[in-house]
Amino acid sequence: MLTIRSATIADCALIRRFIWELASYEKEPEKVQTTEADIARDGFGVDSQFRTLIAEWNAEPAGFALFFDYYSTWRGKGFYLEDLFVRPEFRGRGIGSALFARVARAAEQEGRSFIKWSVLDWNTPAINMYKALGAEFLDEWTSALLAGDSLRQLADKDLVERDS
Amino acid sequence: MLTIRSATIADCALIRRFIWELASYEKEPEKVQTTEADIARDGFGVDSQFRTLIAEWNAEPAGFALFFDYYSTWRGKGFYLEDLFVRPEFRGRGIGSALFARVARAAEQEGRSFIKWSVLDWNTPAINMYKALGAEFLDEWTSALLAGDSLRQLADKDLVERDS
Repeated sequence: MLTIRSATIADCALIRRFIWELASYEKEPEKVQTTEADIARDGFGVDSQFRTLIAEWNAEPAGFALFFDYYSTWRGKGFYLEDLFVRPEFRGRGIGSALFARVARAAEQEGRSFIKWSVLDWNTPAINMYKALGAEFLDEWTSALLAGDSLRQLADKDLVERDS
Repeated sequence: MLTIRSATIADCALIRRFIWELASYEKEPEKVQTTEADIARDGFGVDSQFRTLIAEWNAEPAGFALFFDYYSTWRGKGFYLEDLFVRPEFRGRGIGSALFARVARAAEQEGRSFIKWSVLDWNTPAINMYKALGAEFLDEWTSALLAGDSLRQLADKDLVERDS
């Protein structure tokens, strides 16, 4: 039997494990820099950055969804679904779409008009599930990221401009 | 002379105009569903969803940057840069990178380790600017969106599951 519940701070080790398992499925486990302590502080502290749902199958942890507020200047308030993951041994039981449906329900209840997320272009099973749900794929758009030294250099450029 | 300042609620009409001008440059002005009242409520109300910087050139409104908190389960706390726009007549003066630098400075000051954003794959001038800043392009990832009837149908699916 499937149950879906909101995560608590007692779930931080499990959430960190899920994040790592998803990154491993995505072939980039070494990219996970967050620790269990980060998850505790950022998900369950005074300035919470995200919400997490845990799916259990016969009381066994089977998967999770992690999401947060997002704003589109075209569409207004939405959610960003950062992670949606079901452990391989629990797949094929509708757990992924049940987690997604719970996020959709939260969006509707809170007046948020869309859910946005990203998918790896070779992850055909996920893409097919999303297509079946009616997702629109934003193929014309590419995501970009600035971090580390590049971010610091750009931040320092702002200081120079203010001094001059 | 360039100045960059935080927007106030008095800037809502200007911000809505900038959003529309950017969407027009992106060839989808009809996609802008947000109104000036939405911008006022969502950007400057009690539950603010985003922050906006305004660039002025000799006191003329020249461009804007609009961003909000974002969370990566790999990298932790970051910003999402939803919009970065400079009016055509003010381009070539470094205003775009100055706005971006100000967002980078805010990230550094607030302990946020990255900035993420999206760019249209045909927008070569923007892509070249981002590459020059050291941006990483996440070419393997595609963004997807669920909205409207598809979102409502999925939300209703959650109700059915809870009833059964």
